[in-house]
Amino acid sequence: MMRPGAKQYAVSRPLYSEESFAEEHQKVYRQRKSMLDHVKQYFTCDAKRAKNAALSLLPIIGWLRIYQVKEWLVGDIVSGVSTGLVAVLQGLAYCLLASLPPWYGLFSAFFPVVAYFFLGTSRHISVGPFPVLSLMIGSVVTRLVPEDGPVANITGFEGLSMDDQRVLVASSVTFLAGIMQLAMGVLQVGFVVMYLSDNLVSGFTTAAAIHILVSQLKFVLGLQVPGFSGPLAIIYTLESIFTQITSSNVCDIVIALIIMVVVFIVKELNDRFKSKLPVPIPIEVIMTVIACGVSYAFDFRTRYGIDVVGYIPSGYEPPIAPNVEIFQATAMDAFPMAIVGFAVAFSVAKVYSVKHDYTIDGNQELIAFGVSNIFGASFRSFAASTALSRSAVQESTGGKTQIAGLLSAVIVMIVTLAIGFLLDPLPKSVLGAVVVINLKGMLMQVREVPYLWRRDKHDCMIWLVTCVGAILLGLDIGLAVGLGVELISVVLRVQFPRCSVLANFMGTDIYKDRKDYINVIEPEGVKIFRIPSPIFFANIDFFKRKLVEAVGFSPLRVLRKRNKALRMIRKMLKKGDLQWSPKGYLNTSFGSIDEKEYDSNLEELDLPTDFKDLPVRIDWNAELPANIIVPRVDLHSLILDFAAVSFLDISALKELKTILKELIRVEVQIYIVACDQYILEKLHHCCFFDDEVQPSIFFLTLHDAMLHIMEKHPQSAERKSNYDKISTSFTVHNPEGNFWRNDRKGSDPECKL
Amino acid sequence: MMRPGAKQYAVSRPLYSEESFAEEHQKVYRQRKSMLDHVKQYFTCDAKRAKNAALSLLPIIGWLRIYQVKEWLVGDIVSGVSTGLVAVLQGLAYCLLASLPPWYGLFSAFFPVVAYFFLGTSRHISVGPFPVLSLMIGSVVTRLVPEDGPVANITGFEGLSMDDQRVLVASSVTFLAGIMQLAMGVLQVGFVVMYLSDNLVSGFTTAAAIHILVSQLKFVLGLQVPGFSGPLAIIYTLESIFTQITSSNVCDIVIALIIMVVVFIVKELNDRFKSKLPVPIPIEVIMTVIACGVSYAFDFRTRYGIDVVGYIPSGYEPPIAPNVEIFQATAMDAFPMAIVGFAVAFSVAKVYSVKHDYTIDGNQELIAFGVSNIFGASFRSFAASTALSRSAVQESTGGKTQIAGLLSAVIVMIVTLAIGFLLDPLPKSVLGAVVVINLKGMLMQVREVPYLWRRDKHDCMIWLVTCVGAILLGLDIGLAVGLGVELISVVLRVQFPRCSVLANFMGTDIYKDRKDYINVIEPEGVKIFRIPSPIFFANIDFFKRKLVEAVGFSPLRVLRKRNKALRMIRKMLKKGDLQWSPKGYLNTSFGSIDEKEYDSNLEELDLPTDFKDLPVRIDWNAELPANIIVPRVDLHSLILDFAAVSFLDISALKELKTILKELIRVEVQIYIVACDQYILEKLHHCCFFDDEVQPSIFFLTLHDAMLHIMEKHPQSAERKSNYDKISTSFTVHNPEGNFWRNDRKGSDPECKL
Repeated sequence: MMRPGAKQYAVSRPLYSEESFAEEHQKVYRQRKSMLDHVKQYFTCDAKRAKNAALSLLPIIGWLRIYQVKEWLVGDIVSGVSTGLVAVLQGLAYCLLASLPPWYGLFSAFFPVVAYFFLGTSRHISVGPFPVLSLMIGSVVTRLVPEDGPVANITGFEGLSMDDQRVLVASSVTFLAGIMQLAMGVLQVGFVVMYLSDNLVSGFTTAAAIHILVSQLKFVLGLQVPGFSGPLAIIYTLESIFTQITSSNVCDIVIALIIMVVVFIVKELNDRFKSKLPVPIPIEVIMTVIACGVSYAFDFRTRYGIDVVGYIPSGYEPPIAPNVEIFQATAMDAFPMAIVGFAVAFSVAKVYSVKHDYTIDGNQELIAFGVSNIFGASFRSFAASTALSRSAVQESTGGKTQIAGLLSAVIVMIVTLAIGFLLDPLPKSVLGAVVVINLKGMLMQVREVPYLWRRDKHDCMIWLVTCVGAILLGLDIGLAVGLGVELISVVLRVQFPRCSVLANFMGTDIYKDRKDYINVIEPEGVKIFRIPSPIFFANIDFFKRKLVEAVGFSPLRVLRKRNKALRMIRKMLKKGDLQWSPKGYLNTSFGSIDEKEYDSNLEELDLPTDFKDLPVRIDWNAELPANIIVPRVDLHSLILDFAAVSFLDISALKELKTILKELIRVEVQIYIVACDQYILEKLHHCCFFDDEVQPSIFFLTLHDAMLHIMEKHPQSAERKSNYDKISTSFTVHNPEGNFWRNDRKGSDPECKL
Repeated sequence: MMRPGAKQYAVSRPLYSEESFAEEHQKVYRQRKSMLDHVKQYFTCDAKRAKNAALSLLPIIGWLRIYQVKEWLVGDIVSGVSTGLVAVLQGLAYCLLASLPPWYGLFSAFFPVVAYFFLGTSRHISVGPFPVLSLMIGSVVTRLVPEDGPVANITGFEGLSMDDQRVLVASSVTFLAGIMQLAMGVLQVGFVVMYLSDNLVSGFTTAAAIHILVSQLKFVLGLQVPGFSGPLAIIYTLESIFTQITSSNVCDIVIALIIMVVVFIVKELNDRFKSKLPVPIPIEVIMTVIACGVSYAFDFRTRYGIDVVGYIPSGYEPPIAPNVEIFQATAMDAFPMAIVGFAVAFSVAKVYSVKHDYTIDGNQELIAFGVSNIFGASFRSFAASTALSRSAVQESTGGKTQIAGLLSAVIVMIVTLAIGFLLDPLPKSVLGAVVVINLKGMLMQVREVPYLWRRDKHDCMIWLVTCVGAILLGLDIGLAVGLGVELISVVLRVQFPRCSVLANFMGTDIYKDRKDYINVIEPEGVKIFRIPSPIFFANIDFFKRKLVEAVGFSPLRVLRKRNKALRMIRKMLKKGDLQWSPKGYLNTSFGSIDEKEYDSNLEELDLPTDFKDLPVRIDWNAELPANIIVPRVDLHSLILDFAAVSFLDISALKELKTILKELIRVEVQIYIVACDQYILEKLHHCCFFDDEVQPSIFFLTLHDAMLHIMEKHPQSAERKSNYDKISTSFTVHNPEGNFWRNDRKGSDPECKL
């Protein structure tokens, strides 16, 4: 058994139950904060806290103070200009997703950026339109103001053109989402985005990419497709596209294809020669300018009948008040928007904050996006988050702070105020092509599926359910379904763990699953049951069943049989059919006994067996008088290994107590080992203990309990091996460190150790 | 330290890492069943399986074979008659909740019972109307066929009277709920009711009781109240009642009050003298008969204008086909009905099955209720489950099997076919009073709240949210909200556990939270971090933060500083500003170094420190040349205690690997101890290991890892106590079982042990 030269593990210490350990080692009294203390602390205010709060509310103060003009400014300017050009293009393009006139996209790339400049904690993300959010806005907009069919019944729509109605809807829902974000930030519940796991977000954005792809088909093909919303909208859209596919505009298709191929190739080159290029080639901007010029020169609009961006009014429009009726109609849409917009921006921001080693604050980010959206919505922009591709441009071209963001907003403003009219002849198919080509990254996430399937079926299911759900049911419902499945999957994992019966490695304090090893031993009359997860309402029944399986009998049933047997014996003693002699019971009558007579008062059968007014305790495993048969119980001790039980709820606690009581009543001694201190405290607090279930059943480690049992039941030391059923005799490795330490007086020195 | 005469814990065995343990103890190869095997096994068919399947599908065969005519029949007959009388009364009363003509309640107390007789596994529950379900039906019925206002646009409603329309709705939604139950039973997903924890059900039924109470007020007060549905319906109902409370019918109030008082008192007496009464006094039936007689004799209807049951047609009506359009309109209502109906019946059945020691089968129960509802709905009955009070009558009057149930159905049939007309003059207020008085038990569940609050805030929140949600938002939405909160509460409990840093009890293998005890020691340079819960997407960030807090530095930041320092040193060596002599580095130039120059290529800074082309490895904790400053790291070993980690998901696995790598790269040796076998297998399976993170970091127990560390870092054995910072010297308890066993060759014999 002992490896020559191997390192040795040797321990000799007193044997501890939790009680004896607590006696010997005094615990430090730690004052727990009550809920009131927390509240008090939260509202305590002093100068330092006030200053910190102000600083954390206006992060710009923090980073502007350490701004290194010499080192950072050039990078910020280059980055700001590049990002600005991309922002103009994406603003126009993503506006198509939102089913709004293109120039509102320019507003969305301006107002939120300005507000974020003051409030945001991330220095690298480019705030502005995000395709998934734009699409979600688009679905609300087309639902309330469909292209054909009656608009929703909302006071405030009267006298407005369709586009104005749509802008009102988009800005109102953005306003509402902003309020929700602001409220979440103020209430400090930014942690909820934790529930959007990587898999969920990946599945969700893949689905969004497919939605976006489908929604852009009409621009790429030059078709008129009505906006559908609600579950299965994607199917209806595809149906509509395919029924009229013969009337596609060939010119649009050709333009789109050329743009896509060129942009794709140059982007790949950008990626490959990343380290060699000072700034990635802004191929989208270049292609757009070319397309714009060509379209103008050859008058594509009238010659080929293609759909162009058209008139862009220069300058900003007056602020707009959100419409409360629209709030009511879109509350269920605004919430997922608030969550998704924030979650995406936060996850992108987190990546850059780790890379550049600064901290971002989730709750402050919520406040920043909330205010940005509220501010933006007041000026007719729609919901802002960040687009991964644009943020990548801002960071990779050397942006160091949100100064770059602000400069990009200035570029957008210049386009809005001065040169917007130049974009007039730009074909919408070009914008569509730009959107589609930017989906590559999102669509490639599909490659995760086989990887996840091999690694973890649960995680794969979450991905697939979220993705398929979001494709078919729509992004909002799909997200809810994905979240639900994800939460259930956590519960399921906790709920059905693998219980096991442990056995000992001879001569050690090591216990492992008895099914996994051959040379392990289970002392006779002792079972060690390991509970490998928290216990709560949803799995307590499962554990009870597994425990009954492990011990091999139902304690309640045995208890009832015993109590019934006692009733019979008592009655027979009374009638004189049975007499007790010191040698045992003597049957004097041999009439058959009808068990059914003793079935009354079922509740009493569940009480502890009561031997009073009987001359002697009955040994249930010996032969009983009058051929009364009671199931044999070979177990005298049961050890429950609680090492992995990280919490217990009230239902579990009640049921656990019931089953422990039943076991104790059939004279099985229970030991609970390696229990967490907090659970132990909770048990005390919740009146878990009484005359039958006592705190003395808790032991420090499994081996402590086992040694204690061996002490009490020396015959169990003659153990049997689990598999070969031969009682093995032990080699004693170490006269001092022997295994079943045996210092009872007068104990059998031949005790096979 | 040692208690005289105390029992002793002594172990001496080889030191094991997981790898060395696996080498020495061969694991039994256990064939895991693949998903395919499970499917195959599921569809394998042989004679025995077929027989078992047939028996489990028709449980009646099982219990009829063991039916003991002599002992059981009398009980069944007495019970059947008593239950039948109660069933008639409750059928009529609960029908009011469903907003249907009263006699349809009699159908509901007949057809489902007959189907259940053949298919059910519980021998004691009384199948039939259940107030909560009836109320849920009522809300669907009044939504689709309101009293005033237009009925829903459903083909099939034409030419039907309002009552017929309502019956069609009720039977269709029942049919649909039945299909859902049947499907769940066939798919063996009966376990979903596990999620309806005791607290949830208690909160939900309390809310239902309040809804029922409010809905019965109109009968008790003799008012006409329109049916409201949807969120806040209860508020509107109360508003409507209070605006017309002055026109209440005094006669109705008096009748109802008398009935309530008498029934209440006699029920209390029944309870108190339970053991002395052979059969509880059927006071409700008696009072109803009296009220019926009085109402007829004094002609209450015309004299006091009170609302009576009215004409009850004798006999059954022809079957009815469910309406598919109603299916579509009520799918969202049928699902909670299917779940609630089954969950309540199953929980009642479980109580009796434990009491009388037989097994019930959840999935077969689902099938039984599914078929009962489908069968019943075809004959115009509405959704059946069980009422606790009626089942209590059936069991307490001696019912042994569903023969009693069948007899109760016969009683109901007799009333329907022959003597229904006698019930004609029964005032509805009597029925209302009977319903209200039966709510006592459900309403008294409110008493659980303070108990729960003291014991477990989480559980209390679930109760309150479910109850308040179900009251205000309606039963269906309330149930969904409660379920959501419950699932999140499980996730939350797993998510924010208490992490702790452990310390050792001198001379033992015991490790506890270092904050809890005074006389514990942490070996220098070693941290033991305990993770007390599963790790998954929602808490991996939390753990990372806690771990960084525990070790006291951010490994990534240190790594970057070191790599930057290396760059500088390399450059200085190249330029000749720095020279290496065997005594150390020699600075030859003292120009200031601008750290920012070395900020480029951030990704490379995260790679392992690479000492190649340097003359010597750098000791980061010594003084560095050229005043380069790198944060000092005093930690050489970190032990992660995984004893309570019951699962890991892919996100957690990825992040864990990242943080482990960062730590390894700053030369902190990681040890993971007490890791579950299945997690270890999963890590192997998911390519967790590579050149840096190796399987050899896993040790069997915390103490094994600690001994191993002491072996490698003998200077750490000169440990400092956590609090008093004095390096303690050890008493050796046991020359063989000494603690930091030291068998390296040539080791310092003075090593303070």
